[in-house]
Amino acid sequence: MALGEFELIRRFFTAQPVKHPSTVLGVGDDCALLRIEQGEDLAATADTMVEGVHFLPDVDPESLGHKLLAVNLSDLAAMGAEPKWATLALTLPRCDEVWLQSFARGFFNLAERYGVELIGGDTTRGPLTITVQALGLVARGRALRRSGALPGDLIYLTGELGAAGLGLRILQGRSAIEDPAAIQRLERPEPRVDIGLKLRGLANSCIDVSDGLAADLWHILEPSGVGATLDWEQLPLADGVRRYLAETGDWRLPLSAGDDYELCFTVPPAKQGELEHRLRSVACPYARIGRIEPQAGLKLLKDGRSIELSRNGYQHFSDD
Amino acid sequence: MALGEFELIRRFFTAQPVKHPSTVLGVGDDCALLRIEQGEDLAATADTMVEGVHFLPDVDPESLGHKLLAVNLSDLAAMGAEPKWATLALTLPRCDEVWLQSFARGFFNLAERYGVELIGGDTTRGPLTITVQALGLVARGRALRRSGALPGDLIYLTGELGAAGLGLRILQGRSAIEDPAAIQRLERPEPRVDIGLKLRGLANSCIDVSDGLAADLWHILEPSGVGATLDWEQLPLADGVRRYLAETGDWRLPLSAGDDYELCFTVPPAKQGELEHRLRSVACPYARIGRIEPQAGLKLLKDGRSIELSRNGYQHFSDD
Repeated sequence: MALGEFELIRRFFTAQPVKHPSTVLGVGDDCALLRIEQGEDLAATADTMVEGVHFLPDVDPESLGHKLLAVNLSDLAAMGAEPKWATLALTLPRCDEVWLQSFARGFFNLAERYGVELIGGDTTRGPLTITVQALGLVARGRALRRSGALPGDLIYLTGELGAAGLGLRILQGRSAIEDPAAIQRLERPEPRVDIGLKLRGLANSCIDVSDGLAADLWHILEPSGVGATLDWEQLPLADGVRRYLAETGDWRLPLSAGDDYELCFTVPPAKQGELEHRLRSVACPYARIGRIEPQAGLKLLKDGRSIELSRNGYQHFSDD
Repeated sequence: MALGEFELIRRFFTAQPVKHPSTVLGVGDDCALLRIEQGEDLAATADTMVEGVHFLPDVDPESLGHKLLAVNLSDLAAMGAEPKWATLALTLPRCDEVWLQSFARGFFNLAERYGVELIGGDTTRGPLTITVQALGLVARGRALRRSGALPGDLIYLTGELGAAGLGLRILQGRSAIEDPAAIQRLERPEPRVDIGLKLRGLANSCIDVSDGLAADLWHILEPSGVGATLDWEQLPLADGVRRYLAETGDWRLPLSAGDDYELCFTVPPAKQGELEHRLRSVACPYARIGRIEPQAGLKLLKDGRSIELSRNGYQHFSDD
């Protein structure tokens, strides 16, 4: 790629919708310089997406720009952190202006909604691979961790399960169900930043569900030294997912499919009222889906049976 | 790549040689949590390397691990920032244990020498592409910028020019010169962190030379609104580079070849003594190579002629 092309690419990422006064220096020097106020901790996360692995080659670039930032903001949300900055490392096979314009629009539209300033990154030639690193702030000692779940905690989930997994099956031609909303959930996940902020000082533990509820819930259970029971009847499923389950009987989908980017968190029963009060003003629905147990293991109550969901993602019937 | 393989890959990056007390939370949650003390600004930078573009497919993985971190630390050095943390986004075509062990050794050996803690990242399957983001600290208002050069400033350069460019030509079979030191400079650049720290409050401007001295010096001249004259006789050239120049007459190499990762900085003449005093204890050599001029443009004095080095990297003789 000629130098001129790199300059062109950089031009697509200079029209910043957000400028923080705490950004001492943004794009254009050897580093960005950021000012962190006393009493705030910095939360840092990074996620990579690769063509053919995390998205299909014909993906809408605007959706891709949205999703790359969204999955990083989802990690900040799971810590209860307020998004502030991002860097973008963009490896591109060629300089396609229409593609870049569309990608940048998706990225910056979401960045503007959540107050994220792009402060740097790198542009290189190569197979389409994109890494975003997001930085956010959280008041000292108030971050939500995976490791704080306690026996008796109620387990909650935002939004709905399995829609993104269904969307992927539809795009891959593996399901004939018509469900544009499922494809939308796959391509334009909504980071639950507002809810993450409201959970500070309330939730004992929190994680964002990116690899499937069962796999990610284990990332709460193990460091917390506890187990859990989920109630199938309480799992929030979209209409399309219910139709898919009725047609295929593939009930594992909403538990194992990735890309939901919902928050799963646990709250002690005594704080249930406070939780409902705080989330009243948030548009996103949420559901109580189970309970933390003192003994290790993850169980699903379904149709009068107790199904063990094992750590490596494979499930077997414990009472067969 | 199976989940088990990802776990395996992560295992190579858990043996941290460095742990900062200011790391509230490292690898293992949705985000890392970092504490920044009052009075310090955070410096952030990111660099990507792609197989076949930035390194050859048969590169020694230990050297690659070293270089990826080194080029990011070089950006921190150019700001006068002290390295503290890094994230690593690793996209790999397969899980090769020997390769990973060697890569991790190169990365962590350098990390240990400069006090860098790996706090997170991502591991994905795909064409070999690696992005490192480095975070460092610099006292408020003390960061070195590109934009502060003033007419009369003396221009300095650390180390030597062109060795990495020669090393690349040797590896590509484009030069028959025998020079293992040049290949070493290409594969294991040394970030000039110690010098960057000593330049705080002394240098008016600073940049790290990654795209060739001429191209990078322009990144000081333009935002500073000044020009410069370089003196060919003062450019620090390694023996191998001198032999290459004698054989080929390709005098542009040390000015245009990338990957030097030396610091180029400007200092007012009144502070020359202080500079020499401060750099006395640093093992790395440095040279005065020119002077900042009030009028725009970059000139090279060579063999009694003034050669204009233009902004886009092409050179022409102004007095022809």
